[in-house]
Amino acid sequence: MNCPETIAKWGVYELSVAGPADGNPFLDHWVRADFAGENEKVTVDGFYDGEGIYKVRFMPSFEGAYTAVITSDFGEELRVGFHVTAPQEGNHGPMRVTNNYHFVYEDGTPYFSIGTTCYAWVFQKEELRRQTLEQLKDSAFNKIRFCLMPKHYIHNLVDPVTFPYEGTPIDRSHITEENFMTGNWPYDYDNHFDYTRLNPEHFRLLDEAIASLGELGIEADLIVMHPYDCWGFSKMTRQQDDLYWNYVVARFAAYRNVWWSLANEWDLLREKTVDDWEHYAQILIDKDPYRHLRSIHNCIQVYDHTRPWITHCSMQRTDLYKTTELAGEYRVRYGKPIVMDEVAYEGNIEQGWGNITGEEMIRRFWEGICNGGYVGHGETYIDPEDILWWSHGGKLHGTSNERLKFLAEFAKTLPEGGLKPVKMAWDASCAVPEGEMMTGQESPSLILMYLGFNRPSFRLWTLPEGSYQIDIIDTWDMTITCAGVFKGFSHIDLPGKQYIALCAHRVDAD
Amino acid sequence: MNCPETIAKWGVYELSVAGPADGNPFLDHWVRADFAGENEKVTVDGFYDGEGIYKVRFMPSFEGAYTAVITSDFGEELRVGFHVTAPQEGNHGPMRVTNNYHFVYEDGTPYFSIGTTCYAWVFQKEELRRQTLEQLKDSAFNKIRFCLMPKHYIHNLVDPVTFPYEGTPIDRSHITEENFMTGNWPYDYDNHFDYTRLNPEHFRLLDEAIASLGELGIEADLIVMHPYDCWGFSKMTRQQDDLYWNYVVARFAAYRNVWWSLANEWDLLREKTVDDWEHYAQILIDKDPYRHLRSIHNCIQVYDHTRPWITHCSMQRTDLYKTTELAGEYRVRYGKPIVMDEVAYEGNIEQGWGNITGEEMIRRFWEGICNGGYVGHGETYIDPEDILWWSHGGKLHGTSNERLKFLAEFAKTLPEGGLKPVKMAWDASCAVPEGEMMTGQESPSLILMYLGFNRPSFRLWTLPEGSYQIDIIDTWDMTITCAGVFKGFSHIDLPGKQYIALCAHRVDAD
Repeated sequence: MNCPETIAKWGVYELSVAGPADGNPFLDHWVRADFAGENEKVTVDGFYDGEGIYKVRFMPSFEGAYTAVITSDFGEELRVGFHVTAPQEGNHGPMRVTNNYHFVYEDGTPYFSIGTTCYAWVFQKEELRRQTLEQLKDSAFNKIRFCLMPKHYIHNLVDPVTFPYEGTPIDRSHITEENFMTGNWPYDYDNHFDYTRLNPEHFRLLDEAIASLGELGIEADLIVMHPYDCWGFSKMTRQQDDLYWNYVVARFAAYRNVWWSLANEWDLLREKTVDDWEHYAQILIDKDPYRHLRSIHNCIQVYDHTRPWITHCSMQRTDLYKTTELAGEYRVRYGKPIVMDEVAYEGNIEQGWGNITGEEMIRRFWEGICNGGYVGHGETYIDPEDILWWSHGGKLHGTSNERLKFLAEFAKTLPEGGLKPVKMAWDASCAVPEGEMMTGQESPSLILMYLGFNRPSFRLWTLPEGSYQIDIIDTWDMTITCAGVFKGFSHIDLPGKQYIALCAHRVDAD
Repeated sequence: MNCPETIAKWGVYELSVAGPADGNPFLDHWVRADFAGENEKVTVDGFYDGEGIYKVRFMPSFEGAYTAVITSDFGEELRVGFHVTAPQEGNHGPMRVTNNYHFVYEDGTPYFSIGTTCYAWVFQKEELRRQTLEQLKDSAFNKIRFCLMPKHYIHNLVDPVTFPYEGTPIDRSHITEENFMTGNWPYDYDNHFDYTRLNPEHFRLLDEAIASLGELGIEADLIVMHPYDCWGFSKMTRQQDDLYWNYVVARFAAYRNVWWSLANEWDLLREKTVDDWEHYAQILIDKDPYRHLRSIHNCIQVYDHTRPWITHCSMQRTDLYKTTELAGEYRVRYGKPIVMDEVAYEGNIEQGWGNITGEEMIRRFWEGICNGGYVGHGETYIDPEDILWWSHGGKLHGTSNERLKFLAEFAKTLPEGGLKPVKMAWDASCAVPEGEMMTGQESPSLILMYLGFNRPSFRLWTLPEGSYQIDIIDTWDMTITCAGVFKGFSHIDLPGKQYIALCAHRVDAD
């Protein structure tokens, strides 16, 4: 048995016990532990990690003395004690919803989400995985969406380095662009996998990925299921799914930076019913004692986001033209944080979801923010080796990354508690601090106005009562220029360029 | 009496008779004429043109011998005969709706509408009016929207060269940007005009404008009423309105290139009710024997476009982001030609309707066309003398004009009868010839696909049965490149730029 004596708060406390390796340990045996400290009592399931090793993971939420009681179907009850120390620097705990529409780390540190997507980066060769982490370091991203299962899709026809189950993958070497796109190849593949025998090596790669992201201060938005499959992982039985879900929760829930995304494009998983999704959600409710954030991401049909287990809306845009501009409407409809994770990706591939310009990507970010939401990035540039950030990670080639760093720096200057959209102009998206202008009359402490693709050479603005310093933010050329202090009806000269935001700060006392 | 012996078909045949100049000739007297040829009998009202001259105008729709019988309350019945000759070159007759959603001249010549807007160009100084006509010659525009009344609005605070009524205008010299925009000046102006005494000089300028446009092959989309007023012209009584409407119809209906736009932004004419608009429409139905096209243009609220007197939808976009992309939906809703006359203007002024880029303007044109509609241009660049094309005419400064000429040339290669939108791709707007693909299955003779702001470096396209030559149209750089002949699943290399259209022509026999 391996039982460390100390662990930092919000760290992963891991116990290992030896047990039977014969038969099917995933089905035949169980292990769990009761953790108790002065302020919490938590029971968590363990999981089999191969070679006769069973593990239990726990994330303590308080400092001080803890005890653990380990039970299993194969060994004696074991008791250990350990001490939880102060959190490591940079560990602010798991993510919570605050002010209805926003996020905050458990320690109260504000979180302004700027996400990206690299669906299958974990299952690429080590060199590429390292490159992805290096690139993430050189970015503003504080969240990344990725899959727990490998991905079968166009630009994704090279096998992953590991599979989640024991077995042999079908041969995909004969699949061309044409027969993939037209569906003209045998989708009724033979089952080459044993869906009751998970592959611990695969999940260790995920452990490593989640932990590395945590060190970089990046949230790991785990996509538990997805439809881009030719191996049968999306068509397992309820029992097989249960085995998978329970394994995933037992293994990953103790990482403080985990978010659960039940699915990518849930509505394309034709074999699964709403009852299935509600059932998976119930597993999370029952088995994740840390209440990590939960979402379910759509392709065409948005899941019923009023469901109480959904903590925030993780959305793909459903209109080709209006994307993050709708965040304000979604706020009203769902009353939850709006994260528009998929608004098309910067790139030049053949499909409309992957060939917008950097300018359009950045425009969608600012529209989303001024509509009280958050936005996700992705990048899909044609690559000679078919390494596209969106799926494989690697290096960024686009123009939006620098502008997102600029946005992240600007976001640090915004008041804590987030922004809410207000109707102050018919031709611009405007936001004020959440909780202000509740009657619509008071003068807000700050107004952020985004002019988008319009390019006025000046703006006439009748300001609310009080004096406002107005900064002109060139969101593309990344400059902030103070235009002066204004009062009442104001004529503000502007550069006559696209992608300008105005930030008005109230400068007189109330 | 002045009665020409011949007139060309679809020309303006004008009779003049002398009559009383004392009292109020507009109210006190009437003149009308019955015209008869072998194929038509038409009765039209005349109008007073000042200095004791009364006129009756008629547009013959057939060649051959005609007679006219003129009656009035002040003179004897007069009879004249005249001969209608073949139409002048370039005169294709008045505009008609064809194929439900499209336009055609009465002689069967197809008309692909590319409009522009210069609201008050007629009431500018002569030099500027001449410049406007010169610029129109150097353009693709075959329709122009303009007002019959002068315009009071920001950038429109200099008095027009004429007023439609006898009287003295109020002094606007004290109006500033601020008090105009904030409404902080006396809108309850004194009435300085006699709304029963029209000013023939004003209307002669309009005659001249309509005739000049006709010579250039440009349709005159006459905006009869509008709300940008400080002289009371938008707040007249029902009787005063009737005088005005009847005068306008009697004076202008005989010009073959007239379209009636009942109002610009009808919903901002707060004094007028739906009953008023239906009443004006009835005047047109009763008094315009040529059945010129009739529309009514919105600001926010679209008029009920299912009304039978509305021949086509003249629309302002009601969404800041989605404009001409909605033309297809409007077609379904209204079953009439969709002319999106106001989709924001190329320029850099302070307001969101007047500061889009040339690229965005051109994008909106192509989206509109691929959605089975037509689009209108306008330009609003800040000018040291406040001469903005949108209102004053003059010279164009933008980048869209050249691209619209390119579009017009391309449009000549399209099949007659117009395009209809079809859903062939989720990420591109596609159109085929009107009347084709009625069951959705047949292979169309032509497919126009617009990729808009997306910029794929190639496109995968499973073509309908048959062989198609595919042309790559760079709508911005104005090139057309043949990509080759394709069949079935096709991989088409593209330049990876925005604003690309593909035009697929079926090249094998059916």
